[in-house]
Amino acid sequence: MRVLITSGGTSEKIDDVRAITNHSSGKLGKALAESFAEKGATIDLITTRHAVKPEGASFHIHIIESTVDLEKKITELMTEHTYAAVIHSMAVSDFTPESSVTLEDLETVIADNPTNLPKSLSDIANQRTEKKISSDTEHLVIVLKKNPKIISLIKTLQPETILVGFKLLVDVPMIELLNVAKESLKKNHADFILANDLAEIRGEKHHGYLIDAHQKVKEAQTKSEIAELITQEVLKLEEAK
Amino acid sequence: MRVLITSGGTSEKIDDVRAITNHSSGKLGKALAESFAEKGATIDLITTRHAVKPEGASFHIHIIESTVDLEKKITELMTEHTYAAVIHSMAVSDFTPESSVTLEDLETVIADNPTNLPKSLSDIANQRTEKKISSDTEHLVIVLKKNPKIISLIKTLQPETILVGFKLLVDVPMIELLNVAKESLKKNHADFILANDLAEIRGEKHHGYLIDAHQKVKEAQTKSEIAELITQEVLKLEEAK
Repeated sequence: MRVLITSGGTSEKIDDVRAITNHSSGKLGKALAESFAEKGATIDLITTRHAVKPEGASFHIHIIESTVDLEKKITELMTEHTYAAVIHSMAVSDFTPESSVTLEDLETVIADNPTNLPKSLSDIANQRTEKKISSDTEHLVIVLKKNPKIISLIKTLQPETILVGFKLLVDVPMIELLNVAKESLKKNHADFILANDLAEIRGEKHHGYLIDAHQKVKEAQTKSEIAELITQEVLKLEEAK
Repeated sequence: MRVLITSGGTSEKIDDVRAITNHSSGKLGKALAESFAEKGATIDLITTRHAVKPEGASFHIHIIESTVDLEKKITELMTEHTYAAVIHSMAVSDFTPESSVTLEDLETVIADNPTNLPKSLSDIANQRTEKKISSDTEHLVIVLKKNPKIISLIKTLQPETILVGFKLLVDVPMIELLNVAKESLKKNHADFILANDLAEIRGEKHHGYLIDAHQKVKEAQTKSEIAELITQEVLKLEEAK
C-alpha cells in the first residue's frame, strides 16, 4: 500500500528576500506518516524545509516551497504511482503575491481610474527595476492573487484514491467548523475532512473532528489520536472497497 | 568583553496562520558569535526560531519573532549590559502588515475618495470579524506600514559601543552597493557596514565588503572570512580606544 501525505506550510515569494509563509510545524504530518508506516504502508511525504520529518526507509521525502511547486509535485507523483490514500494536511497559501507597490504608486494608479486595478498595479511593479523593494516609503501595498485549489486536483488525478482533506479555522463555533468541513467534503469529493480550530491546538493537545462522506463525526484530542483515527478509518474504508 | 549579535530573519504576522518572513539561515550570525567567543567574549545572540544557533556556555540565546520584539529585546539588553560591540546581522522586516482586505473592499473604499487610504482600509479590516481571512475572493490586498529602524536605535542607547551594520542588496553594481553602505554608515553612526549582494551569496561562498568610518574597504569571500574580518577589525578598534 502506498500513501501520499502532505505536511508543513507553503511559502510564497514576495521578492528575493521576503516571502509569505503559512505556519505549520509538520508534527501532525509526521505522526500521520509514522502511523501509516506502522501498518506497512510506503509513504511519499511532500513537505517543507522547516517542517519536522519522520526518519526511516518507509518514507520518501519531497521538499517543496510554494503552492505551485506543490501542484507540480502532486501531479508528478500521482502520475507515477497509484495511491491507496492521499492525506492532504499541508497548510497551503490560498494566495500568492502578484505585485508590490508603494502607497504613492497605488494612489497614482487610482487617479487614472483603471478598469483592471490588479493589472495596472502589476504593470507598475514590473516597470520597477530594483529586485528588492526599497524601504523609502511609509506604506507598501502587496496585491495577491488566488492560488489553484490543490485539494480539488486529487480526485481528478485518481478518482479511486481515498482522500482526506483538512480544514483549519480560527476561533469559530463548533457548528460553523463542522458546516465548513461538510462543504469542503462535497466540493472536493473528499472521503474525510479533519476539521480543526487553531484556538484548540497547543503543543501535543490538538482537538479535531473527522467527518466522513455520510457526515458521521468522530473526535480526537491530540495529534497522535488524530493520526491513529485517520489511519484506522482510511484502512477500514480501503478494506470495505 | 560582552558582544551583542543579532541574526536570523524576522517574521511579521498577517493573521493567526500567515506571516511575512525575511529569509536568513543565521549561518553568518553563528560564525560571528563563534569567532568573537574564541577571543573570549561573552555573547548575547538575539535570533529567530529557524536560524542555526551556536552551542556552548559563552552564548546567551534570545529568540524573537517580529521587528517590534527585536526593538524591545535590544532595549532591554542594552539597558542591562554594556556592550563592547553590537553586530546587527539580522534580516529585519522594513514593513509590517497593517491591514488585509479583499480587492472588492479596496474598490469600495476608493469610490468614497478617502483622504487617508491606509486608515480607511484599516477601519474596514478591523470591522471584519473573522480572524483568518476568507479565501472567497480573487485578489487580496495587504497594506504594510514602515517598521521602526532598529539600527538607528543602537548608538542612542550606547554611544560608546562599536556598531557593525549590514546592508544586503540584490544584484546591483558594486559602486551602488558601496554608496548605499556609505550612506547607512553615516545615517546610523555605525563604525562599520558589511555590504553584500544576494547574487553573490551561495552556500559557504559569501562575498562581502567591510567599510569603516574612514571609508576604507576590506573584502571577504566566505562566511567564515567575513566573521573573522569583522572580529579582527572590531577588536583593533576596541584596543585603539
